[in-house]
Amino acid sequence: MKVLTFGEIMLRLSTGEGERLIRAGSLQMNYGGAEANVAVSLAHFGHAVHYVSKIPAHPIGEAVKHHLRSHGVSTDLILQGGDRLGTYYLESGVGERSAKVIYDRKYSSFSHLSTGEIDWDHALDGGCLLHVSGITLALSEELRTITLQALQKAKERGITTSFDFNYRASLWSQREASLAYKPLLPYVDIAFFGELDALHLLGLERKDPALPREERLLQYYKEMEREYPNIRHMASTFRDVKSSTVNDLQGNYYVHGMLHQSKLHHIDPIVDRVGGGDAFAAGILHGILKGNDPDVIAAFATGASALKHTVRGDSSLFTEEEVRQFIDSGSGTIVR
Amino acid sequence: MKVLTFGEIMLRLSTGEGERLIRAGSLQMNYGGAEANVAVSLAHFGHAVHYVSKIPAHPIGEAVKHHLRSHGVSTDLILQGGDRLGTYYLESGVGERSAKVIYDRKYSSFSHLSTGEIDWDHALDGGCLLHVSGITLALSEELRTITLQALQKAKERGITTSFDFNYRASLWSQREASLAYKPLLPYVDIAFFGELDALHLLGLERKDPALPREERLLQYYKEMEREYPNIRHMASTFRDVKSSTVNDLQGNYYVHGMLHQSKLHHIDPIVDRVGGGDAFAAGILHGILKGNDPDVIAAFATGASALKHTVRGDSSLFTEEEVRQFIDSGSGTIVR
Amino acid sequence: MKVLTFGEIMLRLSTGEGERLIRAGSLQMNYGGAEANVAVSLAHFGHAVHYVSKIPAHPIGEAVKHHLRSHGVSTDLILQGGDRLGTYYLESGVGERSAKVIYDRKYSSFSHLSTGEIDWDHALDGGCLLHVSGITLALSEELRTITLQALQKAKERGITTSFDFNYRASLWSQREASLAYKPLLPYVDIAFFGELDALHLLGLERKDPALPREERLLQYYKEMEREYPNIRHMASTFRDVKSSTVNDLQGNYYVHGMLHQSKLHHIDPIVDRVGGGDAFAAGILHGILKGNDPDVIAAFATGASALKHTVRGDSSLFTEEEVRQFIDSGSGTIVR
Amino acid sequence: MKVLTFGEIMLRLSTGEGERLIRAGSLQMNYGGAEANVAVSLAHFGHAVHYVSKIPAHPIGEAVKHHLRSHGVSTDLILQGGDRLGTYYLESGVGERSAKVIYDRKYSSFSHLSTGEIDWDHALDGGCLLHVSGITLALSEELRTITLQALQKAKERGITTSFDFNYRASLWSQREASLAYKPLLPYVDIAFFGELDALHLLGLERKDPALPREERLLQYYKEMEREYPNIRHMASTFRDVKSSTVNDLQGNYYVHGMLHQSKLHHIDPIVDRVGGGDAFAAGILHGILKGNDPDVIAAFATGASALKHTVRGDSSLFTEEEVRQFIDSGSGTIVR
Amino acid sequence: MKVLTFGEIMLRLSTGEGERLIRAGSLQMNYGGAEANVAVSLAHFGHAVHYVSKIPAHPIGEAVKHHLRSHGVSTDLILQGGDRLGTYYLESGVGERSAKVIYDRKYSSFSHLSTGEIDWDHALDGGCLLHVSGITLALSEELRTITLQALQKAKERGITTSFDFNYRASLWSQREASLAYKPLLPYVDIAFFGELDALHLLGLERKDPALPREERLLQYYKEMEREYPNIRHMASTFRDVKSSTVNDLQGNYYVHGMLHQSKLHHIDPIVDRVGGGDAFAAGILHGILKGNDPDVIAAFATGASALKHTVRGDSSLFTEEEVRQFIDSGSGTIVR
Amino acid sequence: MKVLTFGEIMLRLSTGEGERLIRAGSLQMNYGGAEANVAVSLAHFGHAVHYVSKIPAHPIGEAVKHHLRSHGVSTDLILQGGDRLGTYYLESGVGERSAKVIYDRKYSSFSHLSTGEIDWDHALDGGCLLHVSGITLALSEELRTITLQALQKAKERGITTSFDFNYRASLWSQREASLAYKPLLPYVDIAFFGELDALHLLGLERKDPALPREERLLQYYKEMEREYPNIRHMASTFRDVKSSTVNDLQGNYYVHGMLHQSKLHHIDPIVDRVGGGDAFAAGILHGILKGNDPDVIAAFATGASALKHTVRGDSSLFTEEEVRQFIDSGSGTIVR
Ligand SMILES: [Ca+2]
Ligand SMILES: [Ca+2]
Ligand SMILES: [Ca+2]
Ligand SMILES: [Ca+2]
Ligand SMILES: [Ca+2]
Ligand SMILES: [Ca+2]
Ligand SMILES: [Ca+2]
Ligand SMILES: [Ca+2]
Ligand SMILES: [Ca+2]
Ligand SMILES: [Ca+2]
Ligand SMILES: [Ca+2]
Ligand SMILES: [Ca+2]
Ligand code: NI
Ligand code: NI
Ligand code: NI
Ligand code: NI
Ligand code: NI
Ligand code: NI
Ligand code: NI
Ligand code: NI
Ligand code: NI
Ligand code: NI
Ligand code: NI
Ligand code: NI
Ligand code: NI
Ligand code: NI
Ligand code: NI
Ligand code: NI
Ligand code: NI
Ligand code: NI
Repeated sequence: MKVLTFGEIMLRLSTGEGERLIRAGSLQMNYGGAEANVAVSLAHFGHAVHYVSKIPAHPIGEAVKHHLRSHGVSTDLILQGGDRLGTYYLESGVGERSAKVIYDRKYSSFSHLSTGEIDWDHALDGGCLLHVSGITLALSEELRTITLQALQKAKERGITTSFDFNYRASLWSQREASLAYKPLLPYVDIAFFGELDALHLLGLERKDPALPREERLLQYYKEMEREYPNIRHMASTFRDVKSSTVNDLQGNYYVHGMLHQSKLHHIDPIVDRVGGGDAFAAGILHGILKGNDPDVIAAFATGASALKHTVRGDSSLFTEEEVRQFIDSGSGTIVR
Repeated sequence: MKVLTFGEIMLRLSTGEGERLIRAGSLQMNYGGAEANVAVSLAHFGHAVHYVSKIPAHPIGEAVKHHLRSHGVSTDLILQGGDRLGTYYLESGVGERSAKVIYDRKYSSFSHLSTGEIDWDHALDGGCLLHVSGITLALSEELRTITLQALQKAKERGITTSFDFNYRASLWSQREASLAYKPLLPYVDIAFFGELDALHLLGLERKDPALPREERLLQYYKEMEREYPNIRHMASTFRDVKSSTVNDLQGNYYVHGMLHQSKLHHIDPIVDRVGGGDAFAAGILHGILKGNDPDVIAAFATGASALKHTVRGDSSLFTEEEVRQFIDSGSGTIVR
Repeated sequence: MKVLTFGEIMLRLSTGEGERLIRAGSLQMNYGGAEANVAVSLAHFGHAVHYVSKIPAHPIGEAVKHHLRSHGVSTDLILQGGDRLGTYYLESGVGERSAKVIYDRKYSSFSHLSTGEIDWDHALDGGCLLHVSGITLALSEELRTITLQALQKAKERGITTSFDFNYRASLWSQREASLAYKPLLPYVDIAFFGELDALHLLGLERKDPALPREERLLQYYKEMEREYPNIRHMASTFRDVKSSTVNDLQGNYYVHGMLHQSKLHHIDPIVDRVGGGDAFAAGILHGILKGNDPDVIAAFATGASALKHTVRGDSSLFTEEEVRQFIDSGSGTIVR
Repeated sequence: MKVLTFGEIMLRLSTGEGERLIRAGSLQMNYGGAEANVAVSLAHFGHAVHYVSKIPAHPIGEAVKHHLRSHGVSTDLILQGGDRLGTYYLESGVGERSAKVIYDRKYSSFSHLSTGEIDWDHALDGGCLLHVSGITLALSEELRTITLQALQKAKERGITTSFDFNYRASLWSQREASLAYKPLLPYVDIAFFGELDALHLLGLERKDPALPREERLLQYYKEMEREYPNIRHMASTFRDVKSSTVNDLQGNYYVHGMLHQSKLHHIDPIVDRVGGGDAFAAGILHGILKGNDPDVIAAFATGASALKHTVRGDSSLFTEEEVRQFIDSGSGTIVR
Repeated sequence: MKVLTFGEIMLRLSTGEGERLIRAGSLQMNYGGAEANVAVSLAHFGHAVHYVSKIPAHPIGEAVKHHLRSHGVSTDLILQGGDRLGTYYLESGVGERSAKVIYDRKYSSFSHLSTGEIDWDHALDGGCLLHVSGITLALSEELRTITLQALQKAKERGITTSFDFNYRASLWSQREASLAYKPLLPYVDIAFFGELDALHLLGLERKDPALPREERLLQYYKEMEREYPNIRHMASTFRDVKSSTVNDLQGNYYVHGMLHQSKLHHIDPIVDRVGGGDAFAAGILHGILKGNDPDVIAAFATGASALKHTVRGDSSLFTEEEVRQFIDSGSGTIVR
Repeated sequence: MKVLTFGEIMLRLSTGEGERLIRAGSLQMNYGGAEANVAVSLAHFGHAVHYVSKIPAHPIGEAVKHHLRSHGVSTDLILQGGDRLGTYYLESGVGERSAKVIYDRKYSSFSHLSTGEIDWDHALDGGCLLHVSGITLALSEELRTITLQALQKAKERGITTSFDFNYRASLWSQREASLAYKPLLPYVDIAFFGELDALHLLGLERKDPALPREERLLQYYKEMEREYPNIRHMASTFRDVKSSTVNDLQGNYYVHGMLHQSKLHHIDPIVDRVGGGDAFAAGILHGILKGNDPDVIAAFATGASALKHTVRGDSSLFTEEEVRQFIDSGSGTIVR
C-alpha cells in the first residue's frame, strides 16, 4: 500500500541535556518535520511510504535523504533545488524549565515551492493515503494552493486523505489559519485536532466546561462530523504537562459517532517530546489502513506516541511489533 | 580470607540514554557477569577475591583482566583460550520503555569449558567461600558437572558455599533449570532465591496470596530449610518495578528461622540496574563473612544494591565504608 | 551601576552522570565560587559587575578570565600571581546517592592574598554594591582582615554591602566561623543566612520547634535586626532534599519586619545544584538594586535559583527577562 | 541497471585514535564487508544495487538494514535468521604501529547459510552485474557451492560477473583457497587480483623480478586471459605501505591486452584504510557498466579508493561527481 | 588604543575529523568571520577592540556576544535585530581531499543592514584603526555604501584604515568585485592582497612569470603604491598547498618600497586552516600599531598565522608573548 | 622476580587535539610519573612489579591505585595520606607548536614524604631490581635522603639498582641537580643519561663536536664507567625533534665497553610523547633482567618507546610479545 506524506523537513540542531545554546560547543543533528515524522513511523509499521517535499541540492539535502531512506521511506518524489533547508535550534527543557525552539526556516527551498513543480498525477498514482498538515499552509499562499490541489486530486482518485491541524502560533494568527484551513476540510477523511482547534480555528461553540474533557471532545467531534460528513475519523491527545520531564498522555480516536480512549501513559522522564504528536497520528493512520478495531487503534497510537518520548530525535523508531509488545507487557522490566 | 567466584564474564555493549541500537554510532563497553560482579563487590569490601573463569587469549580477553584487576580481583585462576568472549547488547530502557538485552553469548570460551580444565584442588586451597550461580548451569551439561564438583570439593574442605539461582528464561526452561539445580542444593550453605524460584524451580507449594509477601517468603524459606538443612542462609529482594527509571527495592535475609528486612529504597532515577542483584548478593556474603548482625547484613546488602543502581556498568564500585555512610546518612545532600 | 563581588574562584572538575571518580576517563571543566557565581548572575541581569580576586598567571588563570568575560563580568580588578588555582572534584550524585566534593584548594593564589595587595580605594570607586561571603573568611587570618577592611571602606563610601554566611564545615568549625563573622556584621546591609546559621553561628536562642519554619525564621530575622539594625535585608531558602535528583525549594526575603515567600518550586530532576544558593543571592541583590517590590524580589530570586538547577555548571546563565518569563508562564511547555 | 553483490556484512567495533582495546571505554560502530562496501559505493555512483546476504532477525540485524538503505542499497534480498552477526574489533594503527583486527565472525548467520535458502532465480531476474569475493568461499563448503551456483546462473542469464580474490590468511591457507577459487574462474568476467594472488593462488609462474612491477602484472594478466579467456577485465592496486598513516596507491586496470594505470596517490594521513580495496573494485565496475574509457576507469577507481581512505568507516561515501571533481581538481584547497 | 573592525560574523558548524556531512550526528559550533577573527586576534595582542556588526536578538546572537567577549572583544557597538545569523557548514578536508564549505548566509541580519543604522560618529570616536574586508562589499549595495562612508569618516578623523581584499568567488564575479573595491582604495592605508588580486581585481599588468614570486609581488606593490600613494602598507602570504593537511606558508609585508619576508613555515598537520589569513592580517596590524620593525612585523604575522593552523576554530587564541616565543624557540619540544 | 620502582605519580589532565586550555570544556585524565610508567611497562613485560610511593587517601588516590592495578602493578607498598596528588595540565602540541605543561605538583603527599615513613627493609625483601629517578631528588631534601637510603639498602641486599637522570629544568638548576645526583652514583648499576647530562650534571669534558654523536656518547659512557665502575649499564636515546608531530628516535645501550644502537624509528605522527623515555628505560631494564643480548636489548627498548608514542597516556600498554612483533614485522600493514 503506497502512502504519501507532503510537507517540510528541517534540520534540527539541539543542545545536550542541561546545556544552553549560549555556551554550547556542539549540537546534535536530527531531521524532522510533522509529515516526515509520520512518514518514518508508517515505514516502521510496514507501509510503502513516499515523502513529497523539496530540499536543497547540497550535502545537507543529501543527508535528509540518507535519514529518510535509512528508515525505509522512499525519497523518489523529493524535489531538489532552492536556497536552503529550514533549520531550527532546540534548547531542550528539563523539569520546570521549558524547551526553547528558535526557528531559522524562512527562505527555505520548500517554502519557495511553486504551483506545478510537483507532478501530483505521477505522485498519487497507485496511492492509498495522503497525509498533510496545517504547518505547510502557513508557509505561503502558493503552498495553500498546492495542498488544496493535492487533496482534490487525491479525492478524485479515491485516495484516503488525512489532515493534521498542527497550528503553530509562531507562524501565523489563529484567524489566518482558520481562513486557510476551511477550504481544505471538504476534501479530508481523517482529521487531527483538539478542543482548542475546534474553538479557535473551526469556530465551534464552546461546550460546558463542567463536562469531563472527553465528553466535550466527543461533542466537538460530533458537531464537526455533522458539518463535514466526509471527515469520518478524528483524533487527538490529552497531554497533561506536569513539567518538561513528566507528561501524562491519553489518546482519543473518534469514528462512527463514538470516542475510543487509550489508557493514560505516565511518561517520566521524557527524553525528547518533539514528534510525539506525529507518532500518534501515524499510529491512527496505521490502524485505519489495517482496518483495526477502534479501541486497538487508540491504544496503539498512544503507545507509539509514548514510546517516541523515550528516544532522542523527531522520529519514532519502533516497529508495529515493538509498539504492540509495549502495550501488552507491563512496563520497565528488562527484556532478556 | 580468600574468596572465590566462578562463572562467565561477558562484554557488554550498551547504547547511550535515549538511543536505540538501530541507529547507534557508538557503544559503551563494560564487562560483567553475575559472579564477576559479586567478585568486584567483595573486593571493594576488602576481601581477597579470586575469579575463576575462562576467557579468550586476545585483547578483549586482556581487557577483561584489566577490568577485574583494576578493582582488586585476582585473575590468577582465569584460564585463557577458546573462540570468543560472550557478548551482550544492552539498549537501556527509560520510563515505561523496558531495557532490551540481545545476547550474543553462544560458543563462548567459557561455555565450552571441559571437565578437568580447572584445577579445583589448587583453586580452592586456602579458600573460605565459593560463590556460583544458576546461569552457569544453563550453558552446558559439562558446566553442570564442573559446578557440582566445585561445590562438593568446597564442602569437603569446609569452605562455605553460595548459590544464586539467577534463573534466565532466555537460556532454558524452568523445568530444565529445576532438574539442574536440585543436585547442587545439598552442597549449598547460602542460597539466593525468591518466591517465583520457590514455586517454579523448587516446586514448593504456593502460600496463601492473601498473606503479606514477607510472610510468604518466610514460609518458603522455612520449608526450604527443612528440606535442605544445610542451607542456613537465604536471601532475596522485593523489587517493585514502577518503570525502567523508578524501582522500589527491599532486601530480605533469612537466618536461624527469622527474616530480616532492610528499609525500602526508592530508587529514582535508575542509572543502570544491571548487576543490582549481584551487589545485593555480595553484600549478604560480606556480612556473613564478617559475622555481622542479621539486620545489619540485610541493610548493608540492600544499600549496596541501591547504590549500584546509581552507577553505570555491571559492577558496584563502592567500598564498605561508602555503603555504610550511605545507609547512615540522610540521602542526597552534597558531601563537602 | 557598578557592582563588586570579592572571593575565590575555583576550577571544578566533574564526572559525567552515573560515573565515579575512581574510573572516570575525562572530567568536565567549570569555573565557580560563591561570589563569582553571584557576579555572573548579576551580569546576566544587566549590571556592570566587577569581580575582585587573585588567580595564577598561567593558562588556567586565563581560562578563568575567559569564563567571566564571556558572561560580561569585568576582570579588570583581578590580580594575577601565586602558585595555583583552587580546584575541586565533583562526583555528581543521583537519587539517594549524594554528590561528593573533594577539595584541592589549599595553597591557592587567593588563599595567600596579603593585606594591601588589593587597592580597595580604586576598586570601590563609583561602586554601588559589594558582595562577600563567609567562605573567604575561612581561608586565612589575612583574608579576614581584608574582608573587614573592604566592608568598612564600602560603608564609608555609602556603598551597599552584602554578606552570604555560606558556612562550610569542611573548612572550619562553627566556633571559629562564629568568631570570624561577628566583627563584620556591623558593616553589612544585606545578609544571607538561615535557621542553622542563626543557632550555631550567631548564637540566637532556639525558637519553638512546633512553630512553622517560616514563623521561626521570621523570629530569628527580627531578633537579628534588633541586634544589628544596619542589616535591613535578610534572605535564605528552605530546601527540602528529597534526593540528589529531587528538591523542593522555597525562597524567603525579609525586609521592613516582614517575611516574603516565593511559591515552592518542585525541582525534578536536578541537573546541577552547585551554585543554586548563589543564584538566589544574586536574584535578591538584583531586586534590591532595582527597588522592586519585596514579593517580586522573593519570587524572582527563587525562580532564578530553580532555573540554575536545570543547567550544568556553577553559574546561572539566565537573563532577567528569562527568569521573569519562567515565573510567569506555566512550566514545561515547548516555547516555539 | 540492477546490480547485485553477495557476501557477508559484519559489525565493526573500533577504538578511537591512539586508543588500545585493553582500555577502551567505548567503541565506534560501523557495518562493512567487502561486497557490502562495493554495494554502497555503486549505489553512490547511481546504480540500483541489491545486496544479497543473511543477517539475524534482531536489532543489530535491523541496524545493518538501516545502514545499507541509508546509502540507497536495496535490502529486499537479504534473508533474516540464524544466531549472530559476524563481528570484528579494529584497533586502529598509527605511524609504524599496525592496525589490529580481532575477528569474532564464527557461527554467524551468513556462515551457516544453506544451499537453496537464496532464490537465485528471483534475485538475478533483470540483473546486469553480480559481484562476489573470495572471503565467502572461506566460510563453508556450502557457501562455495552457493557462490558457484550463483555465478553459473548469472552466466546463463548473460549477467556480467565479478570476482574479487580478497584472500584472507586468517581464514584459510593459500592451498585451500586455491582449490576453492579455481572452479569459479570459468564463470567470471571481471577479476580483481594482484601478483601475490597470481603466484600463490593461481600458481602462475614467477616473472623476472628485475622487471618493473607493472610489467610483471601485465604478464600475469595476459597469461590469465590466455587460460581463462572469459576473464576480460582484471584489476588491482599497487599499495606502498610507508606506515599505517601514509600509503602510496596506484590503480591498474587491464582490458583488451593492455594495462591502464592511474596516477599515484600519496595518501597522508590515512583516516581509515578498511574498505579501500572495495572502493577501488566498485570504481572499476562502475566504469565497465558505464562503458567508460579504460584510462578514465583506472583513474576513477583509484581516486574513489584514495577518497575512501579519508573517511571513517568501511564504506566510501562519495558520488560519481565528487570522485570526478577530486580527480580533476588540484588537491587540498578549500571548496567554497 | 581603540581598534575597530566591521563585518559579518557567522555560525560555523563543522564535522569531526574524517566525517562527512551526509552522515554526521553532531556538529561542532564556532563563530567566525574575517573581521571578527581579526578582532579576536588583536584583543589577544592587547588592544582594546570593538567589533561593529549586526546579529539577531536571539540566543544564537547572544552566543556570538559570549564568544567575542570571552576573548576580550567589546560588543557594545553590535546592533541586534533582523532574521538570522549567517551560517556555514564545514566538512573538514584531509590529505588530498579538500575541505568543503556550504554557505547558508543569505538573508542574514548583517546582509540586510541599512545605511544609517550604524552611528559611525559615535563608533569611530577615539579610534585609531578601522579594519574592513571585501567580503562585506559582496553582500549588498547598501553595505558598499556603508563601508565607503565608514572609511571616509575614519580618514576625516585621522584614523588608520585597513582593507583586506578577501575575494570570495562564491559570492560574486571578479568584475563585480573590481568595480566595488576601486572606490574604497583612496581611503585605505593598509591593504591585504596578492598577485591574483592585483591581476584580476586591480587590473595591474602581469609581471614576467620567470621572475621569482617575491620579485613579482614587489613590482605589483610598487605599482599599487604609485597609483594609490595613500596605501603605504601592503601584505599577503604565499601559501603552498601540498594537501589539506600540509601547507607551506610565508608572509610578505611591504612598506617604504621594500618587501619583508618571514621564514617559511612548514605546517604539518593543519588542524584548521580557516581564519589563517585573518590571523596574519591581525599580526600585521598589531606590528604597525606598535611601530615594530618591518622584518619583525612579517615574522610575527606569519608566526601568528602558522599558530592559528594548529587550533580548531576560526579564531587565533595566542597572545603576543606566545607568538613571540613560538618564533624564537625551536619547534616541537615540550615546554615544561 | 620482584621489581620495585619508587617515585611520584601525578594526575595528568590534557586537552583534546587542537584544543587550548583557555577554552577547553573537558579534560582527559591519565595518571603518570617517570617511575610509575616504568612500573607499568615492566608489568606488561611479565614482571612482578611493586610501586612505592605516597598518595592521598581520597577517591583520586583510589583512582591511581585502580590505574596501576589494572595493568598488574602491585599497590601494596603505596602509602596513603597527605594533602593532595600532584597534578599537571598538558596542552598537547601539534606540528610546529610545542606541547605545554603546567605543573600543579607543589604540596603533594609524595613531596611531603618523611624519612622513616617507608619501611625499606620490608619493601626490598625478595627484590631483584630497584628503579628511581632524578625527579624525586628535586622535590625535597628529605626525598634525597630517602632515595639514597633506598639505594644503599638495595645494594646491601645485592639488588640491582637503576637511576634515570630525568633532569627537569622547571624544578631546579643544573647545579643543584649535580650536587644531589653525585652521592647516589656509587650505588647505581644502571644509569640513564645522555650527552647533555654528562656535560652539565656530571661535569664531564666536552668531546670533539666534529665526531658523530654516537662516538661522543661512547666516550662519555667510557669515562663514566672509569669513574664509577659500578655503573655497568648506561643507556639513552637520540631524539630528533622535527616537530611536535614528527620525531626520529634511536636508542643507545652501553655495556662491557661497547655501544649498541637500535635502528632509527621515524615516528609520524606522534599521538602522545609523554612517557616515551620511561618506556625506553623499562625496555632496557627488561632486557637486563632477562639477560638478553645487548643488540636485542637496544632494539627492544627503542621499539617499546616508539610504540609508546602511538598511544594516548603516559603508560606504554604493550606486552613483550607485541613489542617483539613490532620490531620484527614491517610497519603499518593491517594485522588480520
Ligand atoms: Ca540524563
Ligand atoms: Ca510535531
Ligand atoms: Ca523523576
Ligand atoms: Ca535522567
Ligand atoms: Ca545479574
Ligand atoms: Ca555556593
Ligand atoms: Ca575489504
Ligand atoms: Ca587526529
Ligand atoms: Ca578568512
Ligand atoms: Ca604527516
Ligand atoms: Ca592526526
Ligand atoms: Ca618521563
Ligand atoms: Ni536518522
Ligand atoms: Ni528505522
Ligand atoms: Ni512520575
Ligand atoms: Ni572496569
Ligand atoms: Ni574499584
Ligand atoms: Ni520518585
Ligand atoms: Ni563559562
Ligand atoms: Ni552569559
Ligand atoms: Ni517529582
Ligand atoms: Ni551507515
Ligand atoms: Ni550515502
Ligand atoms: Ni607525506
Ligand atoms: Ni569562543
Ligand atoms: Ni582568548
Ligand atoms: Ni611534513
Ligand atoms: Ni589506566
Ligand atoms: Ni595493561
Ligand atoms: Ni614522515
